[in-house]
Amino acid sequence: MINYPNGIRRQRILENKKPAEKKVNFANRGMNFETEINASNDYYLSRKIAVVHKRPTPIQIVKVDYPKRSKAKITEAYFRQASTTDYSGVYQGKYLDFEAKESKQKTMFPMKNFHDHQLEHMDQVLRQGGISFVLLHFSALYETYFLDSKFLIDYYKEHGTNKSLPIKYIKRHGHQIEMSGIPRVPYLEVINKYYLGEK
Amino acid sequence: MINYPNGIRRQRILENKKPAEKKVNFANRGMNFETEINASNDYYLSRKIAVVHKRPTPIQIVKVDYPKRSKAKITEAYFRQASTTDYSGVYQGKYLDFEAKESKQKTMFPMKNFHDHQLEHMDQVLRQGGISFVLLHFSALYETYFLDSKFLIDYYKEHGTNKSLPIKYIKRHGHQIEMSGIPRVPYLEVINKYYLGEK
Repeated sequence: MINYPNGIRRQRILENKKPAEKKVNFANRGMNFETEINASNDYYLSRKIAVVHKRPTPIQIVKVDYPKRSKAKITEAYFRQASTTDYSGVYQGKYLDFEAKESKQKTMFPMKNFHDHQLEHMDQVLRQGGISFVLLHFSALYETYFLDSKFLIDYYKEHGTNKSLPIKYIKRHGHQIEMSGIPRVPYLEVINKYYLGEK
Repeated sequence: MINYPNGIRRQRILENKKPAEKKVNFANRGMNFETEINASNDYYLSRKIAVVHKRPTPIQIVKVDYPKRSKAKITEAYFRQASTTDYSGVYQGKYLDFEAKESKQKTMFPMKNFHDHQLEHMDQVLRQGGISFVLLHFSALYETYFLDSKFLIDYYKEHGTNKSLPIKYIKRHGHQIEMSGIPRVPYLEVINKYYLGEK
């Protein structure tokens, strides 16, 4: 591919160094949904399939100590409300943006899982031609759905955030994701099929 | 556009509510470069031109207090090194990803501004068809350049992070951005011209 006139040292990061493969524990069905999404993203990244990262939690830092000979220590800080969604990245040149949520409900998904700023952000992403969606995990049913944000926003405009999305609505407008293989939450299959027109 | 059967309350976020327009102070040439980028992104967002956000600083949280009747307070936390770049977003369906840095140097830009993980991330984004670049601001010259990450990575492979990018190299492979109008750092003009083939 490329010559490294100044020795092999420089190539250590840019070539072939795959992140360690994460092991997925199939036995542990109660595994936190967010952890499963993160593991799926690690898988996609390690296989050079997609580059999707979780955005760090926004924190308002108030006080920082700088002790001698040791690293800066934050001693007072507060959580801020996220103004965007949790995940963003790139897949085959396309911008992906999504939020992943789980609920113990069996027949509906509470809209209060999504706050106003997030819905506004999703709307902005859709208008800009990005692929915006939510991954909804019903932990009691062990069912996961991919729902385009368009339908979430439509429902919100109609009913507000006090209501819940009926599972019937999610099934009608969304796509179920089978969580039985590797990666555990293969959401890109939905994108391949319904957004990129494969197969 | 859409009817709001349940009253006007619901439309408050999704329609026409533009973020307050930021005032740009032309007098203050010493304005922090990051602040100027953020203001430019706010401008693009408010005009529905692009959706680009700064990723929050990644923090490792160690201790949190939950005082009664008041919000959670983080009492011990540490800065973590970012594994990606500072900015990401969507423009006309395309994934944008960039890092913005400034230097007081006049003839070169120190490579140590970019760490290994960031360069690896840029490489992953490029391979996935995203638009990855750096915005380099020479504060002493008051000159700003847009450089595709490809050229940053090429230079890194050749010279490592101990070296500095000569300004000649940046001028040859990059594009200067005039910082005289609104938004202050109109980096999308470069993308329109050289990536989307406008004009």
